[in-house]
Amino acid sequence: MHSFNELVSAFEQRFASALPFPQNPTTLYEPCRYFLTIGGKRIRPVVCLMAHELFEPLSNDAWHAAMGIELFHNFTLIHDDIMDKAPLRRNMSTVHERNGLTAGILCGDVMSIYAYEQLANINHSLSQVLHLFNTTAIEVCEGQQLDMDYEKRNIVSIDEYIEMITLKTSVLIACSLKMGGLLGGASEGNAQKLYDFGKNLGIAFQLQDDYLDAFGSSERIGKQRGGDILANKKTYLWLKAWELGKDSHRAELVDCTKRNDESKVPTVLDIFRTTGADLACRAAVESYSTAAFNSLEEVAVMSNRKKHLHDLASYLLLRDQ
Amino acid sequence: MHSFNELVSAFEQRFASALPFPQNPTTLYEPCRYFLTIGGKRIRPVVCLMAHELFEPLSNDAWHAAMGIELFHNFTLIHDDIMDKAPLRRNMSTVHERNGLTAGILCGDVMSIYAYEQLANINHSLSQVLHLFNTTAIEVCEGQQLDMDYEKRNIVSIDEYIEMITLKTSVLIACSLKMGGLLGGASEGNAQKLYDFGKNLGIAFQLQDDYLDAFGSSERIGKQRGGDILANKKTYLWLKAWELGKDSHRAELVDCTKRNDESKVPTVLDIFRTTGADLACRAAVESYSTAAFNSLEEVAVMSNRKKHLHDLASYLLLRDQ
Repeated sequence: MHSFNELVSAFEQRFASALPFPQNPTTLYEPCRYFLTIGGKRIRPVVCLMAHELFEPLSNDAWHAAMGIELFHNFTLIHDDIMDKAPLRRNMSTVHERNGLTAGILCGDVMSIYAYEQLANINHSLSQVLHLFNTTAIEVCEGQQLDMDYEKRNIVSIDEYIEMITLKTSVLIACSLKMGGLLGGASEGNAQKLYDFGKNLGIAFQLQDDYLDAFGSSERIGKQRGGDILANKKTYLWLKAWELGKDSHRAELVDCTKRNDESKVPTVLDIFRTTGADLACRAAVESYSTAAFNSLEEVAVMSNRKKHLHDLASYLLLRDQ
Repeated sequence: MHSFNELVSAFEQRFASALPFPQNPTTLYEPCRYFLTIGGKRIRPVVCLMAHELFEPLSNDAWHAAMGIELFHNFTLIHDDIMDKAPLRRNMSTVHERNGLTAGILCGDVMSIYAYEQLANINHSLSQVLHLFNTTAIEVCEGQQLDMDYEKRNIVSIDEYIEMITLKTSVLIACSLKMGGLLGGASEGNAQKLYDFGKNLGIAFQLQDDYLDAFGSSERIGKQRGGDILANKKTYLWLKAWELGKDSHRAELVDCTKRNDESKVPTVLDIFRTTGADLACRAAVESYSTAAFNSLEEVAVMSNRKKHLHDLASYLLLRDQ
């Protein structure tokens, strides 16, 4: 059994050696290599490997699953960046910004096929694993579509928002854990508990991200505080403030979305506090976190085997361990 | 064993009933449904089914392969249309033109996953079939990238052009035949002959398309004659005329690419004739056609079983049977 750091560095090695994309066409593969090297936290492949290690030492199947999942995740990021018109990711140029729209579309496409090529190497339960993966991949697309749809709408309910972030973000983390477990020989019941753990962890993490963007220290969040407010993003805080607020709060929120200067940040933060959206958000983080830890607790293996997954979740959710 | 028309109509039925995409998000699935109903000749799934019937009656595996291939093909069309900035396909609006860039990207993405979901239902040789499919799918992306790259280059050799159309178009037809054969129990040797048949058929068909665009009757080609010339497409004819022509011909070709009126069409056609590019193109069509029929001939099943594939190839290549 390995810690997060050990698995990240082992994964990076395997990933780099398993993926010498062909040289040509350079216009297709150079941007693929570029995007994969600008990194990311590798959370999904690592939790897949950790889930596998709950039951069995790491196998080739587990590595192929982990690499397939990470490739798929990167494919979705490349295409999301086009749809979001994002010039930067992790402070580096996005593929479409750097190499044009065609490269953005095609690099994403080919990366998704390389993801499936990793999965095709899996020896055990290939069909079952593929169905799980496909169901999840379809949900991820649906989540991205909902995100795009919601941007154009004035009102989105909290339930709709939770559904969107669940599909867009959480199900792939959940799937990573379940796949790792299944390939390690987990029972359907244990695999499902791992899925639930990942799903709740993902939701809690996203809601915490919404919270920290508004109320975290800029040091901790590594980006400008209030970025979501400036970008008029309809986060949990915004939607909850809308739900809980009086007409005057709503009017002020609408007014702020029309202003493009930083001075609106304190105004909006004030509304978040006055309406109690801030506390509601923290309560929601807490509730999904608790659900996540409860699901992990219920996975029927000895507690000490779950230490690394527990530690990782605590770290991601900023909990004292 | 079934004829082309029988298989097309059986395929349409299965395809429609296997693919009731979910209702929601409508913004994602309505354009998917739209694009699949504007049709296409269904050549790829039908040759997959025909290849299967050389060896065995149609099985569920064969149908899943056929549907997966057709979904994948449509996914590539949706994304190609974005990259080509094409407003129309089959005289209907393209997805990105009708529903925007986001819909174009995401419909394509989700359709490719539905393609894999069909393949995941295959019971026999799943891993082998997936590897073949992935290799092909990667080649299709590479072919599209080469096509994009070549548009920006002044000179492309005939070899490069053949490589591009092989990857972009032919390998998927070849793969369809090979998959159908393998799932029907074909030996590796027979499956490879089917692959070669499809690959050469695809190249011959594309070169014939280049020829007919310039020299066919508009009735036969169903579009304006000289369309490729007007669009400054570097077809086989254009590249061969460049290769065979004198400096004066090349100068005239360059001059014509700068003109945007229809009057250049007869000038370019003249150069195609004077340089012998027209005859070279017909000879190339003939040569790839012969190679295709020879490969089909070598598939070790009784000749009468191959009748429907033979008829279809003859029809596509405008040969008397």
